Amino acid sequence: MTTQFDLTDTIRILARTPATLDALLGDLPEEWIRTDEGADSFSPFDVVGHLIDGEETDWIPRARIILAEGPEASFAPYDRFRHRARNVGRSLESLRAEFGRLRAANLAQLESWQLTDARLDLRGIHPTLGTVALRELLATWLVHDLGHLAQIARVMAKRYREDVGPWVGFLPVLTDHERPRS
Amino acid sequence: MTTQFDLTDTIRILARTPATLDALLGDLPEEWIRTDEGADSFSPFDVVGHLIDGEETDWIPRARIILAEGPEASFAPYDRFRHRARNVGRSLESLRAEFGRLRAANLAQLESWQLTDARLDLRGIHPTLGTVALRELLATWLVHDLGHLAQIARVMAKRYREDVGPWVGFLPVLTDHERPRS
Repeated sequence: MTTQFDLTDTIRILARTPATLDALLGDLPEEWIRTDEGADSFSPFDVVGHLIDGEETDWIPRARIILAEGPEASFAPYDRFRHRARNVGRSLESLRAEFGRLRAANLAQLESWQLTDARLDLRGIHPTLGTVALRELLATWLVHDLGHLAQIARVMAKRYREDVGPWVGFLPVLTDHERPRS
Repeated sequence: MTTQFDLTDTIRILARTPATLDALLGDLPEEWIRTDEGADSFSPFDVVGHLIDGEETDWIPRARIILAEGPEASFAPYDRFRHRARNVGRSLESLRAEFGRLRAANLAQLESWQLTDARLDLRGIHPTLGTVALRELLATWLVHDLGHLAQIARVMAKRYREDVGPWVGFLPVLTDHERPRS
């Protein structure tokens, strides 16, 4: 395995996530929006809220900290459950629209920095992981999106776990992550 | 866990898959379209071909066999690699368009049958699973779509497996399915 990071590709794919969520989740019945894998796992509704939290408190805020090149470029800890209280009473449609606006603004910010390879190597301090590079933060942003897209598809699929009858053995998506995980 | 199958929901969600694939894969650079998990695993390009194979040889053809109520409603075996030879030289864009047309026609066919609960209980014979009900076949169709959406997201994410640096431990999508699987 080798490194593959490409800033242009990363921005291009990050830009598509709101439209992918609109296609996958638009007009979905409420039971499908709110289904989850139990315990503290995320429903599709929770995932969109969690992605909004990332736009507001994680990716670009942490990139700013790194790019400020201060003496101690430490990130604030990230709250995985911030969305729970934040989005009570919100519709998924309004959250999807909000996510699309935040993502577009953040990618415009990222592009405006015109990051060189040298600046992509600048470092910050993660509260538990220690020293990390800006390019690792940006690669993680994209992988995080894709992981949560996979999660939404998996969580939706599991609604029909009993309904597929004997096909369950051919459908690993139904048995992935047996232990609930957000 | 209880059964949740709803024909209207199933059709509605199946109808959205082509648009989701268009959003996720449209204009994606070739390296992202052709990336896979090794061995006989599927790339995003392969997955779209495999979904086309399902439209042409699996879901509706098998539903027709069940609904014909013949003395021996046996399904033909399904070829998971039919798409490999079929789609040499094709562009992903043309495959996505073809999948959208096939899916729309198949859902129109499904709706035209106006299936009652009694007919959803009709049975066919799967080559390895034995007796299966029409409602199980239709639930499997949807779960199969969602499983392959999750797969596309996971396969894309793994392109950046080395690039995320120390974040790998927080990104289970990068370590799911370590053993390649199509």
